[in-house]
Amino acid sequence: MTSESSFIALMRQIATDPAARGLNDDAAVIALGNETLIITHDMMVESVHWLPDANPADVAWKLVATNLSDLAAKGAKPIGVMLGYMLGDDDWDWAFAAGLGEALEHYAVPLLGGDTTRAAGKLDARSIGMTAIGMATTATVPSRSGAQSGDVLYVTGNLGDAYAGYELARQGKIGPEILLNAFNRPTPMIASGQALAPIAHAMMDISDGLLLDASRMAEASKLRVEIDLATLPLSADYIALHNDNRESRMIAASWGDDYQLLFAAPANAKLPVLAHAVGRFAQGTGLALTENGNSIALPDRLGFEHSC
Amino acid sequence: MTSESSFIALMRQIATDPAARGLNDDAAVIALGNETLIITHDMMVESVHWLPDANPADVAWKLVATNLSDLAAKGAKPIGVMLGYMLGDDDWDWAFAAGLGEALEHYAVPLLGGDTTRAAGKLDARSIGMTAIGMATTATVPSRSGAQSGDVLYVTGNLGDAYAGYELARQGKIGPEILLNAFNRPTPMIASGQALAPIAHAMMDISDGLLLDASRMAEASKLRVEIDLATLPLSADYIALHNDNRESRMIAASWGDDYQLLFAAPANAKLPVLAHAVGRFAQGTGLALTENGNSIALPDRLGFEHSC
Repeated sequence: MTSESSFIALMRQIATDPAARGLNDDAAVIALGNETLIITHDMMVESVHWLPDANPADVAWKLVATNLSDLAAKGAKPIGVMLGYMLGDDDWDWAFAAGLGEALEHYAVPLLGGDTTRAAGKLDARSIGMTAIGMATTATVPSRSGAQSGDVLYVTGNLGDAYAGYELARQGKIGPEILLNAFNRPTPMIASGQALAPIAHAMMDISDGLLLDASRMAEASKLRVEIDLATLPLSADYIALHNDNRESRMIAASWGDDYQLLFAAPANAKLPVLAHAVGRFAQGTGLALTENGNSIALPDRLGFEHSC
Repeated sequence: MTSESSFIALMRQIATDPAARGLNDDAAVIALGNETLIITHDMMVESVHWLPDANPADVAWKLVATNLSDLAAKGAKPIGVMLGYMLGDDDWDWAFAAGLGEALEHYAVPLLGGDTTRAAGKLDARSIGMTAIGMATTATVPSRSGAQSGDVLYVTGNLGDAYAGYELARQGKIGPEILLNAFNRPTPMIASGQALAPIAHAMMDISDGLLLDASRMAEASKLRVEIDLATLPLSADYIALHNDNRESRMIAASWGDDYQLLFAAPANAKLPVLAHAVGRFAQGTGLALTENGNSIALPDRLGFEHSC
């Protein structure tokens, strides 16, 4: 089986246009007259991105939210979305449609088109794709690269809540709602992204885990990043369910799906939104992990990777 | 099971933005400053849009071609594409990547980004999505509606070649190449679309069959369309394999996958590209079929529909 990273390496040989940004970003950045267009495409697959018994309305919501989160990381203003949908059974399709309508209305983003199709036989694992289109709000559009040595690494909010929500959903438990929502209906940080875009040296959303995504930012910026596990913002609900110790902090740092914004900014920058300093960029390469300043070992898996 | 048309009806309730054109078009038309952006999304599913033993490079080519064909029908200039890909087995993925690179290079269209994922278990039926982004070349972007009573219905070239190619591929035969290519590697009529956009009252590409697509154009234009089966352009290769009779003309009129442009223009319009008059618009509703001027019955299926 091809690993995702080798396939992306193949694609990178094709994606030589500057707008593709070497496929190192979660969105394409296209200069068009006086405007800059931001376009992103995300797929979700049953049993990979949602549990088979998930509420279809939640699946629709999450598809919208993760796409808008990619726009948020570019400080973009959403223009609309396109849907690629595989029809399955009636109830699921209708519930999905209702959830899609609800999410798009909530974020005031129009559905602009798409394609609907159907598997030839029984549909074993549904896949759904969405393209989100946005407009840049700054002349320079933040990317994964651009962090500078000495910059502080910030995260906009709690990590680990999506993991805690996933565990509750997997076990069929009902609350706390805020954790279930973090997993089922994540919030794209659209306004925060627009506020941060003018000052962030580098920005991305955390979809695959803080450690993995931060190491990608460091690599794209040709720097080393040091993260202190003790500084991670954890919610009281997360701590109540999973305690506050090295293991639970390591999970919060590597599980992903939180869709907080991760950004690099100078230590003296005045931040327009609340954010938590979790690390620092320095000359060098790679990721180093500390806990209250003391060096600790990296986990075996830095985050969520699709590779086999 | 939800039929495609009922699901699209549901989506139409959400897609109220004017850029969505009521989902009556194959592309969204978005005004953005001084430019007009055209965006389309198409999915292909194994065993629905390609045969399980198809060459993966052909699948990639067809995915690119069908998306660019939607742009062509708007007279748009392609800017780039985004890919949504589900990884499967190594050989298939690499062959697909090679075909994708070849097709994009051929049409000088850059890959701008996308998403790669993998099914949780065995991948039974692969689905692949592509979003194509283009820029309008005319102030008024042609749509399915806009045909006027008295307009002639034109098609840019041979119909039925894709069907003949599909039959050859299904039976494992080798030639003629031009028929196999019509099915495996259709040609998006990008230059013709740009030349026709200023004069066409309505335009679309024929993906689901002449009769079905022409009746959609008539419905969107609130007119009746009359098509004469005897006027359909058939290739010598098609005739050699399938004869030239009412049955074979009916197949050529209803099978689809030819990706010729279908357009409405005044009878006295000077056409910038070669095209074949196959019918005429009149007051009324619906589709009427004649053969050398004599009324004949419509077939049971006007074209390719995904509904169950």
